[in-house]
Amino acid sequence: MICEGWETLELQPNFEKQNGLVPVIAQDVETGEVLMLAWMNPEAFEETLRTRRACYYSRSRDRLWRKGEESGHFQEVEGVYIDCDADTVLLKVRQRGGAACHEGYKSCFFRALEGDEARVVAERVFDPSTVYTRS
Amino acid sequence: MICEGWETLELQPNFEKQNGLVPVIAQDVETGEVLMLAWMNPEAFEETLRTRRACYYSRSRDRLWRKGEESGHFQEVEGVYIDCDADTVLLKVRQRGGAACHEGYKSCFFRALEGDEARVVAERVFDPSTVYTRS
Repeated sequence: MICEGWETLELQPNFEKQNGLVPVIAQDVETGEVLMLAWMNPEAFEETLRTRRACYYSRSRDRLWRKGEESGHFQEVEGVYIDCDADTVLLKVRQRGGAACHEGYKSCFFRALEGDEARVVAERVFDPSTVYTRS
Repeated sequence: MICEGWETLELQPNFEKQNGLVPVIAQDVETGEVLMLAWMNPEAFEETLRTRRACYYSRSRDRLWRKGEESGHFQEVEGVYIDCDADTVLLKVRQRGGAACHEGYKSCFFRALEGDEARVVAERVFDPSTVYTRS
């Protein structure tokens, strides 16, 4: 049985490799689209599992970032996966508001690199100026 | 026109935030399955764009890691995307050999976290001991 040995599973992400954080991929549970990559510290990870809403750790603001706290565009967590090295987390989410990106696109990966150029390959779902009213 | 301003695009990932590396998500171009997360330095990124085969930077081995160099399970790159902050790359790939994970699973995210337990939710595609013969 080639799965033997998997009884001893890492249940917690390894936060040591990236200074107390792990990268977290958020993927649309229905379409499979990759929405964004963000980071979690242990507290954000615990809150996400407990509330089933994505809570990240903002490196720029140096605090917990409850996704949607300003925009209302919460991510409801349908599944949590951990990779072979237990150093990356994958969330399957339902994205409220139809867009994960603060630029108004469904996915943060709205630009394709082609040769020396980047090209916008998605349509904006909302106008950021109407959603983020704080400067 | 709400897309105005996007002529001035970042064409290169920002390698400064993570000590010269950027996280890179590899996604199956056909199924949308998230296969793995790895890292690139500028040299790996340039090689990937040039050869259209995924080349990462191995943090544990501290060298370029041409995905598939040992297993033959190359990743042929069909698309390269960059996120809003230009600090994460998404590759859409064709995974040769049917599996990205060195543990023999198609995706490295083969375990779901459910409550306090992790559960294997995928079938192995290959037996690692037959693919990786170097100790």
